[in-house]
Amino acid sequence: MAKKTEARRADLRNRLIDIAQGWIAEDGLTRIKARPLASEAGCAVGAIYNVFGDLNELVMEVNARTFKQLGQDVGEKGQNPDLSPVEALTQLAVGYLHFAQAHPRAWRTLFDFTLTEAMEVPDWYRAELRQLFSYIARPVARLDPNLSEQEIGMLTRGLFSAVHGIVSLGLEKRISGVPEQHLEDIVRLVLKRLA
Amino acid sequence: MAKKTEARRADLRNRLIDIAQGWIAEDGLTRIKARPLASEAGCAVGAIYNVFGDLNELVMEVNARTFKQLGQDVGEKGQNPDLSPVEALTQLAVGYLHFAQAHPRAWRTLFDFTLTEAMEVPDWYRAELRQLFSYIARPVARLDPNLSEQEIGMLTRGLFSAVHGIVSLGLEKRISGVPEQHLEDIVRLVLKRLA
Repeated sequence: MAKKTEARRADLRNRLIDIAQGWIAEDGLTRIKARPLASEAGCAVGAIYNVFGDLNELVMEVNARTFKQLGQDVGEKGQNPDLSPVEALTQLAVGYLHFAQAHPRAWRTLFDFTLTEAMEVPDWYRAELRQLFSYIARPVARLDPNLSEQEIGMLTRGLFSAVHGIVSLGLEKRISGVPEQHLEDIVRLVLKRLA
Repeated sequence: MAKKTEARRADLRNRLIDIAQGWIAEDGLTRIKARPLASEAGCAVGAIYNVFGDLNELVMEVNARTFKQLGQDVGEKGQNPDLSPVEALTQLAVGYLHFAQAHPRAWRTLFDFTLTEAMEVPDWYRAELRQLFSYIARPVARLDPNLSEQEIGMLTRGLFSAVHGIVSLGLEKRISGVPEQHLEDIVRLVLKRLA
């Protein structure tokens, strides 16, 4: 009996994550509201809160899927040991741009959903993020054998933030950003100069 | 008579910009609402719309003052011809970080108030932005005499976006950002590697 309840809960959780993932891909974070989710999943609104602490938890599950896809589509491909560290970092950066262009709303939701160091971020979510950063950290470590662990960590975050800045001001078509048709060239140029 | 009306309009405009600037410095964009502004300025709500097309126009005037201050505090100081181009760009980048730390809400309002290429942005506002970019473009041009005008323009925007990405993910204390105590080091490190 307990097992059956457990299976039903797991099933509802997955169904809700699937629905939320689709809606976020189509319309972004603003579409995630309890009532329509419950209606689409065929459950009571209260049932959502039996399987998730709140809707943020649900969005974190969708973001975790986006993290995994980003890791597979971009991270893994940047790990080819035949690439020089700068080439590997350029592939990661250009791959990040292409991922953001291909999945604009899922990508935007990673950032629209603000998690700060001051908030209680679940350990599993931080672990997913660390996994993503490790794809960048490996070629960064090859840039210079004298870098300490801490320097590698800081440079990894610095590089990610720099590329993210170029990609996001550009894709949001900010008047201060790089026009979209030049984004890939600029990402390559900035990464090349880092060599 | 027309002159007196003109002077009264100019006076009300300035008064409203002063109030909005103070409120944005204290609380950011969300505090800018017509009714409290009118009450503080001692005018009717309708009078605001006699001197500004809408509240966005008022916020643009505040942002223009922030641009000017950023130009004076940071831009001018990065123009010392005795500095190598990389040193000049580093001073501009670190200056930008310090400006954002010193004026967090005025700085944030430059970006919270989204202007995209698709919107009708007034020419005078674009001119203010171009003026700011010119402070970066001059040392960028000195990096390499073979850069074309267009390459200088794109590299200027790319560098700005990169530094802005590091500064903003860091100051927002994002879990993906550089911790604030390392921000200045990372900005220096990234700029140094661009040499």
